[in-house]
Amino acid sequence: MAFSEFRPLDENSLIEYIKSVPALSAKIANNFDNLSVKEVGDGNLNFVFIVLNSAGSFVIKQALPYVRSIGESWAMTKERSYFEYLALKEKGRLSPEHVPEVYHFDRTMSLIGMRYLEPPHIILRKGLIAGIEYPLLAEHMADFMANTLFFTSLLFRTTSEHKRDVAEYCGNVEMCRLTEQVVFSDPYKVSQYNHWTSPYLDRDAEALREDNLLKLEALIHADLHTSSMMVTRESTQVIDPEFAFYGPMGYDIGAFLGNLILAYFSQDGHADQANDRKAYKEWILKTIEDTWNLFHHKFTALWDEHRNGAGEAYLPAIYNNPEIQLLVQKKYMTDLFHDSLGFGSAKMIRRIVGVAHVEDFESIADAAKRATCERRALDLAKMILKERRKFEGIAEIVSAIPKYDS
Amino acid sequence: MAFSEFRPLDENSLIEYIKSVPALSAKIANNFDNLSVKEVGDGNLNFVFIVLNSAGSFVIKQALPYVRSIGESWAMTKERSYFEYLALKEKGRLSPEHVPEVYHFDRTMSLIGMRYLEPPHIILRKGLIAGIEYPLLAEHMADFMANTLFFTSLLFRTTSEHKRDVAEYCGNVEMCRLTEQVVFSDPYKVSQYNHWTSPYLDRDAEALREDNLLKLEALIHADLHTSSMMVTRESTQVIDPEFAFYGPMGYDIGAFLGNLILAYFSQDGHADQANDRKAYKEWILKTIEDTWNLFHHKFTALWDEHRNGAGEAYLPAIYNNPEIQLLVQKKYMTDLFHDSLGFGSAKMIRRIVGVAHVEDFESIADAAKRATCERRALDLAKMILKERRKFEGIAEIVSAIPKYDS
Repeated sequence: MAFSEFRPLDENSLIEYIKSVPALSAKIANNFDNLSVKEVGDGNLNFVFIVLNSAGSFVIKQALPYVRSIGESWAMTKERSYFEYLALKEKGRLSPEHVPEVYHFDRTMSLIGMRYLEPPHIILRKGLIAGIEYPLLAEHMADFMANTLFFTSLLFRTTSEHKRDVAEYCGNVEMCRLTEQVVFSDPYKVSQYNHWTSPYLDRDAEALREDNLLKLEALIHADLHTSSMMVTRESTQVIDPEFAFYGPMGYDIGAFLGNLILAYFSQDGHADQANDRKAYKEWILKTIEDTWNLFHHKFTALWDEHRNGAGEAYLPAIYNNPEIQLLVQKKYMTDLFHDSLGFGSAKMIRRIVGVAHVEDFESIADAAKRATCERRALDLAKMILKERRKFEGIAEIVSAIPKYDS
Repeated sequence: MAFSEFRPLDENSLIEYIKSVPALSAKIANNFDNLSVKEVGDGNLNFVFIVLNSAGSFVIKQALPYVRSIGESWAMTKERSYFEYLALKEKGRLSPEHVPEVYHFDRTMSLIGMRYLEPPHIILRKGLIAGIEYPLLAEHMADFMANTLFFTSLLFRTTSEHKRDVAEYCGNVEMCRLTEQVVFSDPYKVSQYNHWTSPYLDRDAEALREDNLLKLEALIHADLHTSSMMVTRESTQVIDPEFAFYGPMGYDIGAFLGNLILAYFSQDGHADQANDRKAYKEWILKTIEDTWNLFHHKFTALWDEHRNGAGEAYLPAIYNNPEIQLLVQKKYMTDLFHDSLGFGSAKMIRRIVGVAHVEDFESIADAAKRATCERRALDLAKMILKERRKFEGIAEIVSAIPKYDS
């Protein structure tokens, strides 16, 4: 018995659903007697159920036709689930160590069944708030980003493959519009959804809306932030690619780096007598630097390795000597670095004055203290967005960050 | 009796076809007795028939599944005809004075029936070779480009409309690949299809393939050249949009300007005792300058007029004061200018050493004289491609051109 039309599931109807899907019921050995089903979605958009018994486990993620955090008044296509599924499959193929396996997809129900990332996996953002160091994080993320970005680019693929996928992901237009609105537009204008730590940041929010030079750098164009990652000390898993789209690579890289910078500036709000968080802040800075440097190394190594492949962006017959290969790679990586800085800083800004804030700051109960942390992050982000082309490397960014931290 | 499957038409079978299509036979008052049918296609790709009698006329353009100028060995999808039809309809809606009306489209037969651009319309390139001045050309082309580019951009359209069309035109991938190959790749590498005025330009072609700085500026990314335009002194008509794709605006603008520059450098090869072509060269320079300046004026005027419309690129709530509006428009137009110079110069280069040359030069019988003209154009194009960001306005380009003309 499959479900012939869309209906939102609850913890009871979900069990009926699982019974109708062999790929799912097999995961729990067809045993429904001691099954635990728990709704745990704390994101902005969807419902997430953890299903487990002694035999096994999985997660069910269902998209509803509105934005969960706002309510039914903000309609949002449930077809986003299809694009999330497509992206999970593709990214999983390219970076299987860092993407949860998909067991089942039901387009009618806008529902994905996938691996349950068992404890001690927690959302990275929560780990950063708790001050936990992840020694492999930079390495894992550099690996994930280099593999998923390189192998979906024209550096590796033919024009035909690329255009086919570009056209398919154009179908995810509603999520693209949402991104454009909440990331690139709303923070720079008056919007009913904007909010900030008031009254402390009232003047700062107004200054954003009056900053011509900043607006001149604002960008017209997915979502790789620390809440869409689950981690343990040994494992890094990237989830939730429902905003997936063929957009600029710098968007993903910038989102990760920008969210690490937000975590950095929130640390003073979480410091206490037992832990001043100073050493942790140093670890975050090191992770920012390592991530970019390792990404740069892995990405250019992939490029070198596949230089004579089918990719149509830089044909080997044209870029046919070591000097031009070096020149073109340097130019490409510098442009990507500046793009990443631009996207990263725009994402920092929107998390402070836009619709969706981050737990890093929101969990600081004292509003005055929270506002102080937020203003530092905001001022740094504004500077980077305007001056990004002057930065020649990640070390300069890592040096600039502490200067804004007082 | 419609044709149920694709077949290439000849002058006889075309008559049978027309009889089966009321929209076409009505144009010639259903009178087949004194019908003139003539195949006149001299382009690279397709077959073109002029059909006329005393009652009326039309043109039939049929795409065959290969590149006509190379032969059946170079396969090329006949589906390009569908995208040409789409683009003719859309551009015709946006600029009806400058695009021939479409009477009929048959996707199975890859066939378009459209207005016959009657004499004295001739292909613009032939007019330029003959040294004919067109006093309204700059105005007409500025008008066509401003309207077709502005109204298909995110400055005017919503993200949803835009992504829908981007996805549709991704289907024209084979034509995109052809463009990438013949415009942006082949001229900078050894390719069986490349040719040039040998032996005079042997060393020049080799220098292109060895110029690292030039390759660093080579671009990865339709077709608006002087052979896809028919003109009289009063009328300017843009035809042949089979390469239509959502790409950078500067591609079309650059193609037109670049082809005018090619026409300029070819004039010495067409000069004779009766006409030294000096005054005509001045007219071409003036037309280059007028085209960009009028385009700039019309495009920004459209932007100002529709600033509060549905376009999602620069929201009025963000770009909400005259100062920022001026700043952002200036930045946008400067970037577009530099893009146009980049694409224009790449298109000049490919016409001298790539697969498809231009009649402007090819019609100069004396190879040494031809090579001299070509080398001047090539040297200018190389300089512009490398230095384009240093040019602040079209006047500087118009000043630079004569310096390469000796």
